[in-house]
Amino acid sequence: MQPRNPFQEPAGGGRKLRVGLAGFGTVGRSVAKSLCNNFADHFDLTHICNRNIGQKKVDWLPAHIRWTESIEEVLAADVDAVVELIGGVQPAGDWVRRALQSGKSVVTANKHLIAECGPELTELARKRGRRIEFGAAVGGGIPVLIGLQEGLAGDRLYKIAGILNGTCNYILSRMEATGVSFDAALQEAQNLGFAEADPGEDLEGLDARSKLVILTRVGLHCQVRSEQILCRSISSIEVIDFAYARELNCTIRQISLAQKVTSGGLRLFASVQPALIPMSSLTAHVHGNQNLILAVGESVGETVFSGCGAGGDPTAVAVVSDLFSIARNTRPICVSTAIEFPVEVTGEFTLPHYVRFTVRDRPGIVAAVATILSKHGINIDAVLQKPGYPHSRLPFVITLEPCSSTVMSSVLEEIGHLDFHVQPPVCIPILLR
Amino acid sequence: MQPRNPFQEPAGGGRKLRVGLAGFGTVGRSVAKSLCNNFADHFDLTHICNRNIGQKKVDWLPAHIRWTESIEEVLAADVDAVVELIGGVQPAGDWVRRALQSGKSVVTANKHLIAECGPELTELARKRGRRIEFGAAVGGGIPVLIGLQEGLAGDRLYKIAGILNGTCNYILSRMEATGVSFDAALQEAQNLGFAEADPGEDLEGLDARSKLVILTRVGLHCQVRSEQILCRSISSIEVIDFAYARELNCTIRQISLAQKVTSGGLRLFASVQPALIPMSSLTAHVHGNQNLILAVGESVGETVFSGCGAGGDPTAVAVVSDLFSIARNTRPICVSTAIEFPVEVTGEFTLPHYVRFTVRDRPGIVAAVATILSKHGINIDAVLQKPGYPHSRLPFVITLEPCSSTVMSSVLEEIGHLDFHVQPPVCIPILLR
Repeated sequence: MQPRNPFQEPAGGGRKLRVGLAGFGTVGRSVAKSLCNNFADHFDLTHICNRNIGQKKVDWLPAHIRWTESIEEVLAADVDAVVELIGGVQPAGDWVRRALQSGKSVVTANKHLIAECGPELTELARKRGRRIEFGAAVGGGIPVLIGLQEGLAGDRLYKIAGILNGTCNYILSRMEATGVSFDAALQEAQNLGFAEADPGEDLEGLDARSKLVILTRVGLHCQVRSEQILCRSISSIEVIDFAYARELNCTIRQISLAQKVTSGGLRLFASVQPALIPMSSLTAHVHGNQNLILAVGESVGETVFSGCGAGGDPTAVAVVSDLFSIARNTRPICVSTAIEFPVEVTGEFTLPHYVRFTVRDRPGIVAAVATILSKHGINIDAVLQKPGYPHSRLPFVITLEPCSSTVMSSVLEEIGHLDFHVQPPVCIPILLR
Repeated sequence: MQPRNPFQEPAGGGRKLRVGLAGFGTVGRSVAKSLCNNFADHFDLTHICNRNIGQKKVDWLPAHIRWTESIEEVLAADVDAVVELIGGVQPAGDWVRRALQSGKSVVTANKHLIAECGPELTELARKRGRRIEFGAAVGGGIPVLIGLQEGLAGDRLYKIAGILNGTCNYILSRMEATGVSFDAALQEAQNLGFAEADPGEDLEGLDARSKLVILTRVGLHCQVRSEQILCRSISSIEVIDFAYARELNCTIRQISLAQKVTSGGLRLFASVQPALIPMSSLTAHVHGNQNLILAVGESVGETVFSGCGAGGDPTAVAVVSDLFSIARNTRPICVSTAIEFPVEVTGEFTLPHYVRFTVRDRPGIVAAVATILSKHGINIDAVLQKPGYPHSRLPFVITLEPCSSTVMSSVLEEIGHLDFHVQPPVCIPILLR
């Protein structure tokens, strides 16, 4: 596309918004490029702060930009907004506080900081008459936070569900599409730059958990802390699980879910875990490192937001959109603090379950499992066994009618003591929609 | 869910926003219910205007509301905002103008009015220091306009595509899923209230066209008039087309598409027509009367918005969200006028095509068709013929490599003169993604 100026005058009226950028990694480079090439009529990027400026400095940005290794210089500068792309709760949190205290607005992509300190920072911004925006902290370029906060303000949302981690989605959708092993799919993701050298934060659900905290606050007006959210790793999923899931007309994804439950007082159910999801849902058709967020409201029904959840250029779009919002002075200053309240958080749910057993085959195994399930009042829905596997390492699947996850855990522990297992059973909830 | 108050104080600060409602049909009833039951702390619904108030008046709304058959009374009332749910360009347009001129903000779900007069009305609102919001005019409850305008402000979008008419999507997805005929699916849609007694505006694409005009203005910053947009009816689609589409790993939907084309000067391609779309796209998995809008930007890639595109409650969410925005005084006043410019609009496209012929069978038909295609330089991609049809009325399909839609039209006219046709060929473009 040809470069062009979509606005007739700077978004802020007569004057460009002066911006300081802290963090010149993948996202930072894209933000700088966008501000200086696409939207130079609206923004004046004056400072870039990073370690090892000597190696980082590029020649394709305007010469007047001040490159520095000192955050102090950015905090002392005459800028209207600081873009924080350092990541991590500290020291980024202190720098954001100091920026706000010195009368600057802040735009950040820092999910962990906002998950942990969002209400405090928003309140600080409000007190100082400034703004803190974090559209890039969830879903990369997908405008889900503004959609929840402004576009669905006229409804009462009670459920948020989605695919919030592109690395996990890449691995699972590759296993589904090509039949490669978990390890091979992870290696592919690492080769493509979608997964870190240490992928634990993605696989265990810690990355998605921070995003779910933010979505819960903005969409459900509920306060929840990361450590209150149940997390289960996707690393137990094997290719055969996709074959069995297909027989159930499902696939498997890492699903982040927060839902208000009103029975017995208001509680919030929240989890990040692998789940079977029906092929009839849009969520089942999210491939590669894409993200999807589903919001469910009393009036509006299901609303879906999907797109590129990571990557330099998409995430930079969210950052620059937030800068436009600050320049235009739109959006209310303190929505997210005004509408929070604490709730009891639970990881317990009642859902159908998929359980894969891997056993040394012999007569009586299904009977033994069924006896324990029956003792706990859990009904078997189906028993699936695909042919072609050795007796020494035979996988089969039992699907169970809805039961409590707590009961399920104790049942699985009891079943786990039986002597025919080659590896521990893999238990995955089945989301009905 | 239990009713609750999600905000600690009225959205507008100390005072409730006073609202007059013009139009008490399906959406109007939902808006009134929401304002009075869910958000009574924020809004004061003071007037409801409709014809035949005697029959319309309900007892579940507060007694202080003034019911009237006179729009003059609403326009003269001390309200902050008028909600216009009358529909149609006139007289609704004059009433909206008079509301703005008298210093009231306006929220409307009127797609035809905004498609035709949006820039003029926005400019009028700006001059009067008021707002006109129309989130409900496109995609019902889906917050796509705010998503494009605010959430993707930091990118340059060049393409908008999607399913904008729930009636057509209901008919086509029912034909796909159950194999019922077009007429039977239409009848079902009418029975369910998804289609009007006269469904022409939906089937021919005129409803979607108005929505596409608005999306093009807000998302692509391009001005286009409804009558410049190519429309083709979905009524030529038969069940067999879904069978052939499936062989091509596609399905069929009414697709609205606007795309900037920069080769040879900036032009806008815009159309509303049935199209084959790949099963690998999210769009192919939109069922029933749901809507989906895809926006494509230079940096952000593809972003998807999906949900309930019609219905009283979902559309009311968009109306009430716009009222919240007015109460909070967020969003810029005049974005949509500030960023428009006229472009040349074209309905010509170069795409692969699917052509279904229905013929009295005899030797040489494919050769005759192929000869004409070859003469115009159009390459055949595949010939598909399913067994089991009578020679007297034999359907077969030819898919063609990308060619100009203009060339395609003249070729089809030439082929149409051959004497073996039982009915005119049905030609549908194949969207590659």
